[in-house]
Amino acid sequence: MQVDVVGNVNEVRRIDIAGRSAVVIDVLRTTSTIVTALANDAAAVIAVETVPQAKQMTVKDSIRGGERFNKKIAGFEAGNSPYEYMTQDIAGKTVILTTTDGTRALIKAARAKHVLAGSFLNVQAVAAALCLLRRDVLLLCAGDQDEFALEDGLCAGCIIEELYRQSLFPIRLNDLGRVLHQAAAQCEDTLPDLVRVSTGARRLEKLGRMHDVTYCSQLNLLDCVPEMREDYRMELFRGMEGERISKLL
Amino acid sequence: MQVDVVGNVNEVRRIDIAGRSAVVIDVLRTTSTIVTALANDAAAVIAVETVPQAKQMTVKDSIRGGERFNKKIAGFEAGNSPYEYMTQDIAGKTVILTTTDGTRALIKAARAKHVLAGSFLNVQAVAAALCLLRRDVLLLCAGDQDEFALEDGLCAGCIIEELYRQSLFPIRLNDLGRVLHQAAAQCEDTLPDLVRVSTGARRLEKLGRMHDVTYCSQLNLLDCVPEMREDYRMELFRGMEGERISKLL
Repeated sequence: MQVDVVGNVNEVRRIDIAGRSAVVIDVLRTTSTIVTALANDAAAVIAVETVPQAKQMTVKDSIRGGERFNKKIAGFEAGNSPYEYMTQDIAGKTVILTTTDGTRALIKAARAKHVLAGSFLNVQAVAAALCLLRRDVLLLCAGDQDEFALEDGLCAGCIIEELYRQSLFPIRLNDLGRVLHQAAAQCEDTLPDLVRVSTGARRLEKLGRMHDVTYCSQLNLLDCVPEMREDYRMELFRGMEGERISKLL
Repeated sequence: MQVDVVGNVNEVRRIDIAGRSAVVIDVLRTTSTIVTALANDAAAVIAVETVPQAKQMTVKDSIRGGERFNKKIAGFEAGNSPYEYMTQDIAGKTVILTTTDGTRALIKAARAKHVLAGSFLNVQAVAAALCLLRRDVLLLCAGDQDEFALEDGLCAGCIIEELYRQSLFPIRLNDLGRVLHQAAAQCEDTLPDLVRVSTGARRLEKLGRMHDVTYCSQLNLLDCVPEMREDYRMELFRGMEGERISKLL
């Protein structure tokens, strides 16, 4: 199993992702939010690239959510904090979501054979899904305003560590994968401290959203994996037999 | 002191390097070769972007060296192996050098206030020079055919570790710098093993150049720092007082 990591969304064009399982990682906060929404029984999350597209979209039982540069979008029901998607009334709703980096990365990954959403919250579950899918893997770190983001890279490293634990096949890494695996494997106990000093976390701290950072730094809190289907609609990955991933772990 | 790492040469345009000390890192093999040539008393190394430019250039007492995709260029006296620049007859010569990634990165970095060449061979010396220069730092990993290269990233991490040891000023890192520092600090004893599995090292192994990889993986073998001056001419950095860096360590 070849596992390549790409450090930010702009670099993905240089690698052929056709035929692969792609995992989009935007820890602060898009993919953490999507995992949280589906774990709280949202029907689906639709990734949308632009604010006008999100405004024009009409979907039954839906809410609009998202941010631009970490601020909620005027007229939208919700922002991009996972806490906004933990409420009871999210159940059954479809979330129309547009964010600065994360949803753009999801849409860029759409050419892959499978597109999953990864975060610290669901590292084990994502690795289990990848092992079931048995394809070469692209871990796409969304990054932070076109630059490499520490938290996304460390999350990629954690997924690699978990693939080593779970995979029955030998794993080959690209150079960025090797260095991120090295960094993550050595600091599993101090992950939240490392994430807290990242550029993205500091920006959220200034906006009074440090509790979002703390929540998103939790390893393996949830056992669900969002999978993107046609029309950028993300629903729960249910494995090859339609089972919930929790039964497979 | 702000210390930012850029993961490959194509990303440097997105960061403002004006006013900074830039360190170009192409461990396999350009910057290791340049350091070696100057340590063996070459008068200078001139970084040239294209093969035709290198062919047209006329410089007294010079030799032409370099590679394209790790192969020596037809008609040139030398390739890009550091071993070719360890001979006695290199003394006093000017090397006209063009390589796939390394010299391109040097030329891209030319807008910086100072441009140094870094490698595992001269980590301590580079950090000493940066501390003398007292400017914000850009560590520019040349990368391997437009992708992040493990050995360049780990070398950047080692320079950061050494800056922490030597600098009198607090150091602030960007996210890539943090993760590379984390990776390098944890594996100082196993650096040669890690470098050996990198994409670039494997390619050199196939070409029968594993001894180049082994040589370039040695930490702090040399105490000299190449500095690029006008016309992309690299000579020994002699510190603020004109002293050799060895007296400053």
